[in-house]
Amino acid sequence: MRRSSILLALVVAAVPALAGADDLANRAREVFRAIPFLPPTLERNPLTHEKVELGRMLYFDPRLSASGLISCNTCHNLGTGGVDLQQTSVGHGWQRGPRNAPTVLNAVFNIAQFWDGRAGDLAQQAKGPVQASVEMNSTPERTLEVLGSMAEYRARFGRAFPGEAEPLTFDNVAKAVEAFEATLITPDAPFDRYLLGDEEALSAGERKGLDAFVDQGCGGCHGGVNLGGEGYYPFGVLERPADAILPPGDKGRYGVTNTAEDQYVFKAPTLRNIELTPPYFHSGSIWSLPEAVEIMASAQLGIELGEAELARVVEFLLTLTGRQPRVELPLLPPNSASTPRPRL
Amino acid sequence: MRRSSILLALVVAAVPALAGADDLANRAREVFRAIPFLPPTLERNPLTHEKVELGRMLYFDPRLSASGLISCNTCHNLGTGGVDLQQTSVGHGWQRGPRNAPTVLNAVFNIAQFWDGRAGDLAQQAKGPVQASVEMNSTPERTLEVLGSMAEYRARFGRAFPGEAEPLTFDNVAKAVEAFEATLITPDAPFDRYLLGDEEALSAGERKGLDAFVDQGCGGCHGGVNLGGEGYYPFGVLERPADAILPPGDKGRYGVTNTAEDQYVFKAPTLRNIELTPPYFHSGSIWSLPEAVEIMASAQLGIELGEAELARVVEFLLTLTGRQPRVELPLLPPNSASTPRPRL
Repeated sequence: MRRSSILLALVVAAVPALAGADDLANRAREVFRAIPFLPPTLERNPLTHEKVELGRMLYFDPRLSASGLISCNTCHNLGTGGVDLQQTSVGHGWQRGPRNAPTVLNAVFNIAQFWDGRAGDLAQQAKGPVQASVEMNSTPERTLEVLGSMAEYRARFGRAFPGEAEPLTFDNVAKAVEAFEATLITPDAPFDRYLLGDEEALSAGERKGLDAFVDQGCGGCHGGVNLGGEGYYPFGVLERPADAILPPGDKGRYGVTNTAEDQYVFKAPTLRNIELTPPYFHSGSIWSLPEAVEIMASAQLGIELGEAELARVVEFLLTLTGRQPRVELPLLPPNSASTPRPRL
Repeated sequence: MRRSSILLALVVAAVPALAGADDLANRAREVFRAIPFLPPTLERNPLTHEKVELGRMLYFDPRLSASGLISCNTCHNLGTGGVDLQQTSVGHGWQRGPRNAPTVLNAVFNIAQFWDGRAGDLAQQAKGPVQASVEMNSTPERTLEVLGSMAEYRARFGRAFPGEAEPLTFDNVAKAVEAFEATLITPDAPFDRYLLGDEEALSAGERKGLDAFVDQGCGGCHGGVNLGGEGYYPFGVLERPADAILPPGDKGRYGVTNTAEDQYVFKAPTLRNIELTPPYFHSGSIWSLPEAVEIMASAQLGIELGEAELARVVEFLLTLTGRQPRVELPLLPPNSASTPRPRL
């Protein structure tokens, strides 16, 4: 505990340069930050044990979907990097959704959620898939009917939201899920250890990859604690990728802002745990990480990476795999006589 | 540990009567046995830590299905009593399977697996859903291609099946899953504590329910450690239930043996954790436990239970909910470049 706190303090302090550290490490510290060892503080939604535990149950409860078959964990599987390893997610009625599922891991550090940033935080995000007809296809009313039918859930909402006249609300469902998700962070990747002062945490090759990553300007969009997730950028600034990669029908953030300049603009995704989360891009069209890097280089930077440089950048990206959260599968309350039946 | 071993010894010894115990408890001990605190020994498949851990990974890995969406845990969810709370299971392409998913909990104690007993053990069982077109819709070849594409799985098969020239085989996939499933037992239910000598573990009402259960002959089919799972019986011996409950098209064990007398014969399901596993019967047509008990009474025993007696039997059945296994969600190996893509 003491160690975590000290390291956390170091991160929060965000010391831009360490005396005696090599130049690359100091340059890296100007662009990136290590993942803290403890979940962040959510101002509107303080984490409590009761709330996080409730959120863990909700996250794994397939009864949040109309069919009773799909839980948050279906598309954001904590056993596989917080994603579903699908091109685009598959939901209610075996329908394919429009975009690749972003990882839930470290999502709490993103400025907003979804590829187009249409949800300001994880609580707002959590309300989306529950109701989307191609995802869980439920409604707030049904969700409350389902959860309210089980005495254990009613009691747990009471304990997670003490003092509230009616603790079982759709807002509180979302807040509990957000609280659990805020704990899903992956500190202690080799790159974090490097940022925190252990220069041996990256090999010579990985450091060269980091050097190229910084030099070529990748960190311009993929910076900060998440190496991404901090801003919106047009996809295809310098060279428009193939339609399969950037489908003309999905105009990204334009759908949220209705502003011409937001056409084909997306939130830069996090590169944290990128090794675990193929396929890549909002279209999920690219399964190979080297290929995804090549496409980014040409589309966003207008450059072609040499074979060796590409390999080194990929080598660096593999140092972003952090310590995965170990989560016990929650034991869910049994149906009661009034629990709504699954609806396929 | 010492406590478990002593209790286990007690169970294995299966003392038919305890001196000083009341008559009901001794009668119960003639029909039922407590769930042991430790998994049983599998003669053909000794449990090892490596094998159980590998099995846990396979159990939760959706890449065992062609779509990459369905794992063992999808239909045998360890958060919901080892079942999916569906009338009949839903698999590949959102297709409904023909029968209700039996619980994986304590399944190791059944004489055979599936409602018709067509698999002699859990390893044989595990091979079924992986290949069934309405379930995971994969093949042994694809399974080995998927698992063989990941270095961590290859290494783990080597450690789980040491000394074998080719440890990664479909048989060993099934054996690892069986080993994990053998650990999914639920000891320490109130009824187990009662059988083991704690007469206060059941309330007066629950004991009356047990009395009725034994007196009416329910234990004839629902006896042993699992209160069921030990034999095959015709459904509708004395009164044929409605077609919705016993669909004419599903002739049960007849499909396995082709013997006329096996028409509408099914393995008596376990009543362990029955509270957690609605809906009931192979058809999954009944969601209410009291209603299921009434149907059994009329169909199998030709009797009508009075309201009070029915309530007491149900009360007794609720004492069969044991300590649920606490399972950590496994962290699965990342896809490699050669991992087959999901196939919807």
